[in-house]
Amino acid sequence: TRRYSITLLPGDGIGPEVISVAKGVLSLAGSLEGIEFGFQEMPMGGAALDLTGVPLPDETLSAARQSDAALLGAIGGYKWDKNEKHLKPETGLLQLREGLKVFANLRPATVLPQLVDASTLKKEVAEGVDLMVVRELTGGIYFGKPRGFSSDQNGEEIGFNTEVYATSEIDRIARVAFETARKRRGKLCSVDKANVLEASMLWRRRVTAIALEYPDVELTHMYVDNAAMQLVRNPKQFDTIVTNNIFGDILSDEASMITGSIGMLPSASLGEKGPGLFEPIHGSAPDIAGQDKANPLATVLSAAMLLKYGLGEKDAAERIEAAVLHTLNRGFRTGDIYSDGNTLVGCKQMGEEVLKSV
Amino acid sequence: TRRYSITLLPGDGIGPEVISVAKGVLSLAGSLEGIEFGFQEMPMGGAALDLTGVPLPDETLSAARQSDAALLGAIGGYKWDKNEKHLKPETGLLQLREGLKVFANLRPATVLPQLVDASTLKKEVAEGVDLMVVRELTGGIYFGKPRGFSSDQNGEEIGFNTEVYATSEIDRIARVAFETARKRRGKLCSVDKANVLEASMLWRRRVTAIALEYPDVELTHMYVDNAAMQLVRNPKQFDTIVTNNIFGDILSDEASMITGSIGMLPSASLGEKGPGLFEPIHGSAPDIAGQDKANPLATVLSAAMLLKYGLGEKDAAERIEAAVLHTLNRGFRTGDIYSDGNTLVGCKQMGEEVLKSV
Ligand SMILES: CC(C)[C@H](C(=O)O)[C@@H](O)C(=O)O
Ligand SMILES: CC(C)[C@H](C(=O)O)[C@@H](O)C(=O)O
Repeated sequence: TRRYSITLLPGDGIGPEVISVAKGVLSLAGSLEGIEFGFQEMPMGGAALDLTGVPLPDETLSAARQSDAALLGAIGGYKWDKNEKHLKPETGLLQLREGLKVFANLRPATVLPQLVDASTLKKEVAEGVDLMVVRELTGGIYFGKPRGFSSDQNGEEIGFNTEVYATSEIDRIARVAFETARKRRGKLCSVDKANVLEASMLWRRRVTAIALEYPDVELTHMYVDNAAMQLVRNPKQFDTIVTNNIFGDILSDEASMITGSIGMLPSASLGEKGPGLFEPIHGSAPDIAGQDKANPLATVLSAAMLLKYGLGEKDAAERIEAAVLHTLNRGFRTGDIYSDGNTLVGCKQMGEEVLKSV
Repeated sequence: TRRYSITLLPGDGIGPEVISVAKGVLSLAGSLEGIEFGFQEMPMGGAALDLTGVPLPDETLSAARQSDAALLGAIGGYKWDKNEKHLKPETGLLQLREGLKVFANLRPATVLPQLVDASTLKKEVAEGVDLMVVRELTGGIYFGKPRGFSSDQNGEEIGFNTEVYATSEIDRIARVAFETARKRRGKLCSVDKANVLEASMLWRRRVTAIALEYPDVELTHMYVDNAAMQLVRNPKQFDTIVTNNIFGDILSDEASMITGSIGMLPSASLGEKGPGLFEPIHGSAPDIAGQDKANPLATVLSAAMLLKYGLGEKDAAERIEAAVLHTLNRGFRTGDIYSDGNTLVGCKQMGEEVLKSV
């Protein structure tokens, strides 16, 4: 048996419900593949704020660091929305990404044939969409300094942030993106605003340089405003997209909504070495928290990404992915992806159905 | 007769073709409403680069400044794509916006019943969409300093830009947005990334403060990543959106593509006083330039915005808008909006049909 330690970060809202399902699925898929997991649950986000006064307690970060991978549910909620910046759940998430040095955020957006009707896009536009956004996650305007509030020469208050990238930051995310594209359909589109921003000019220059190492991958460049349009016009044109932190935040959310089923979409955040962070792309959905209505499949598929990208356990990962598809084929649907003729189930029962298919 | 001087900036690609149509429509609609125009054509963008070596000659800027309004076709093309930054057509456009101090960019995205099929969104999602993006146009990361290239403490090259907003910059764009919302359906959604960026925190604080002056307008706030999703999920939820320069660049392009007919969409850029700048939101489309294939209606509708927002000539503006609708109702379509059962026409004939309907 192979043994791995997993830090579970249930977080807020529907987080605990979906993490509980994913934990069960991980355990079963693992045991069928000769893998044993040690789980440690740690507080994070609003839950940590209530318990300890900070959104990312030191104990949580060091537990995650010492484990083989971390699986996060969701963070945030109305209750903490008015908190000062350093006491926001979101700040805990940014600290976790920084603390784990997970600079590469992989966010697939796939339209499953079973769920094509969930998209607001016409069927012929949505069907077959299968793209991956590789978002830089620990640099750019999210972390750039100087930042803050000050006053300008007229004594007026200003708020400011710095978008900044260094060569090595661009090079390493570019390499992850080229490697990702190589394992997919061999097409990489780098998105920037190089017609206006110096940070983007350097980005484009470095991505173009790194492309020499990957002659088998076809590289194109696109401005971010055009990318936002093209995702709506013809999302099928994309295979792998690589972009900076803030553009990736916007475009990956747009891409996910194009699938119409954001309750299905996982993500992986990876560093050079050390544990990765895996989480569904949906939020904490406080309006349905605790009502057994959440779709746990995004977290279950995040657990599959954890196995594949975090632990190199491809067989167990594929076992989970197949179980999810099988469960959908058997007609089980949570409310967010429900359509006529299927069986409406809650979060728990969806988990039980997946377990039957693992 | 009322007299106005208009600076025409045909620019590059399809720019000259669409400007020529819009000029004819402006003249006729004006003469029917007792307005006389003096037109002055000036070089701008790539055309100016070829002619004078700079993308915005001083003569062009001062002509525009001294006129009552400026109407721009489009700028840019493959030929100048590799130019250094200060010799790019885009740089000329940014200099023009800065030079005219047009800080408020109004970009409507409307789905006309005649063109609902052009959208990639399902009919029930697209029909009835009628929103306005109010984008801050002369501040933020587009113009913020410091910017440039340098090396960090490790001697590595960095590229950097500054996202910065001062109170007065936010206040004035917020007021334009509230005034705009008041004349529409009374709903304003301010889009920012206040959970991460200090510049956005100040933005949210000031927009909230200015809202006190507009108790009749309903203000909501949304994060930019969520806004990118909501535009796909349910664009009808939006009336007026106000946001910063870079988020506005991205979201207004996304919104325009949701209509499916970007060849139809105009824009207005306005300052505190002085001439406004009016332009179609589409680009220079070098692939179809000079082939009489371009859709001139976005520029014609930009001329209508020029009359309405730039000159306060509402009747003439509405005459043009009605003529465009009438032309569509008579079944005339350029290639970009063509569908079965209609009459395919080129740029010139579309112009002639609009003239018949003015
Ligand atoms: C919660 C927020 C700070 C976060 C981000 O902007 O990165 C979220 O939107 C995401 O995409 O994971
Ligand atoms: C051409 C470019 C500089 C410009 C911008 O980014 O503002 C364009 O995309 C626009 O939206 O008008």
